[in-house]
Amino acid sequence: MSSLFHNQPPKFFIDGILNADIAILSKAITIIESQNENHQELGEKIIEGIINKTGKSFRLGITGVPGVGKSTFIESFGNEVLKHGHKLAVLAIDPSSDKTKGSILGDKTRMEELSVKENVFIRPSPSSGNLGGVARSTYETILLCEAAGFDFIIIETVGVGQSEIAVSKITDFFLLLMLAGAGDELQGIKRGIMEMADALVITKADGANFEKAKMARSEYAHAMHLFQASESGWIPKTLVCSSTENKGIDEVYKMIEEYKNFTISNGFFSQKRKEQQFDLFLKTIDEQLKHKFYSDPKINAAIEALKTKSSQSNFQPFSLAKKMLDNFFKRNK
Amino acid sequence: MSSLFHNQPPKFFIDGILNADIAILSKAITIIESQNENHQELGEKIIEGIINKTGKSFRLGITGVPGVGKSTFIESFGNEVLKHGHKLAVLAIDPSSDKTKGSILGDKTRMEELSVKENVFIRPSPSSGNLGGVARSTYETILLCEAAGFDFIIIETVGVGQSEIAVSKITDFFLLLMLAGAGDELQGIKRGIMEMADALVITKADGANFEKAKMARSEYAHAMHLFQASESGWIPKTLVCSSTENKGIDEVYKMIEEYKNFTISNGFFSQKRKEQQFDLFLKTIDEQLKHKFYSDPKINAAIEALKTKSSQSNFQPFSLAKKMLDNFFKRNK
Repeated sequence: MSSLFHNQPPKFFIDGILNADIAILSKAITIIESQNENHQELGEKIIEGIINKTGKSFRLGITGVPGVGKSTFIESFGNEVLKHGHKLAVLAIDPSSDKTKGSILGDKTRMEELSVKENVFIRPSPSSGNLGGVARSTYETILLCEAAGFDFIIIETVGVGQSEIAVSKITDFFLLLMLAGAGDELQGIKRGIMEMADALVITKADGANFEKAKMARSEYAHAMHLFQASESGWIPKTLVCSSTENKGIDEVYKMIEEYKNFTISNGFFSQKRKEQQFDLFLKTIDEQLKHKFYSDPKINAAIEALKTKSSQSNFQPFSLAKKMLDNFFKRNK
Repeated sequence: MSSLFHNQPPKFFIDGILNADIAILSKAITIIESQNENHQELGEKIIEGIINKTGKSFRLGITGVPGVGKSTFIESFGNEVLKHGHKLAVLAIDPSSDKTKGSILGDKTRMEELSVKENVFIRPSPSSGNLGGVARSTYETILLCEAAGFDFIIIETVGVGQSEIAVSKITDFFLLLMLAGAGDELQGIKRGIMEMADALVITKADGANFEKAKMARSEYAHAMHLFQASESGWIPKTLVCSSTENKGIDEVYKMIEEYKNFTISNGFFSQKRKEQQFDLFLKTIDEQLKHKFYSDPKINAAIEALKTKSSQSNFQPFSLAKKMLDNFFKRNK
């Protein structure tokens, strides 16, 4: 951590965030993301100090395969969000960042217009493999941004892996970007991701591409139609847009507003948030429970010893597991 | 439990199983499947008493959608197995048994020829929803059957849900039955299930259907080819057969023999068994750890109380989870 922020107490960060100090907000996010135990403790205190100022933003998850035009869409859509008087934070989760494949954020030109605007905060989150970790640090980053006054938060993922599921569990709305006529197979988007989407937006409906996009729209609308109705009562929408020509972007915004009003009035909005918070709680319990058990040095040694014995046909997985747990809890008595 | 077996000590069951007493074997399986704690304790002792006589069978998983002809295939294939001097046990896992949809086992005429033969034991296992439970009771049923001298064990599932995954983790070979020309979409068989298969057998290649089956065979062979090579070095095979005309059944048997010899000689057979046993151990740890935590009455009460609070925006899933775990471990110290 840079020396400016070295050894600052929680209050320094809490006050800074509540005063919308972007440099301090950024540093607090770094603290939240850190695996270091002191940072984690500090992070907890910061969250505790700002928790009462959170929860007031709209949380929008956006995903799509590489090449679908996520950055240009967010650039264009972000302007629309600002036009409506919001403060916008864009959090980008990049599972590929530690691979040579190239990070979605490595490209310095991404959202370059949007990033220099007032009331905009853009923050890449190099995810560290661990999905539970993504959910936790992204969720807490949302809270920090909310406390700093950002009331519209976009969480962007790459649409190739499992981070979409994690993100759908901490957002109010899940938007899937698709290309027209990019071939079948739903462009590598898994059916499960389509099923999660509250809306599907076909990008790059520019010039000659427009007709193709409209055709794709009805195809996808049909495909979406086959999925089960969502719990919210909301019928997933299919739209087309051109980010470069700024066409259809306002409709996407309107549709999201419509969703928000619809789900707030039927109670689903708060019900979903409540369930998300409780799910995060239960998931953390499960993770920490395992962590507690497997980080016990005696358990570790016993498991290593068993590994070699597991080739024997008289290895008894169930009773061995039971005995090991009994010993663990006896020792912790 | 019927009075004949009431209050019998473990030794009664152990001796009965090792003497291939089918009535006692059946009762022992019922004990293994029971959720009753006394039965579970008795079950553990029985397993302990027979564990040294297990591991010598070939464990074959068979799946396919309803209507693919699993029963007639197993009837026909079972005869082939008997011809080669084996003792055959057929365990059928039926996840739908508690629904009105109709049990795959409700049909009394199933495998009626096979079931009356000597050296054959057929046992339905109404699964009780819990997948971990399926894996455990089915695995232990395999052990009991092996101790009773059955050296070829078929585990049959319906091919519609997740029990296939559980079964693939306790079997040596996973066989998927498919129909020819039943339409695309791989007949509702998920890609994941196809990927698990060591072989795909197209059933009902009878009369005029034979040509269609052969065509389907090359299509499926192509599809299978697209999957990653399996760890074993075995290239998944695609065969056709007619159970009613008893055509191609011997080839299926030969292919499985070939697999067995191939994987025994390259070490994969025992490596896989070892990994399966260790996986069962780790999975049991995870399950039991959760069970221990969630069955604690204080934890239960605390979680119920939190549920109502989770609608508040200042609900802190991560620190609440941490505190609850700390309290749990403190109390168990």
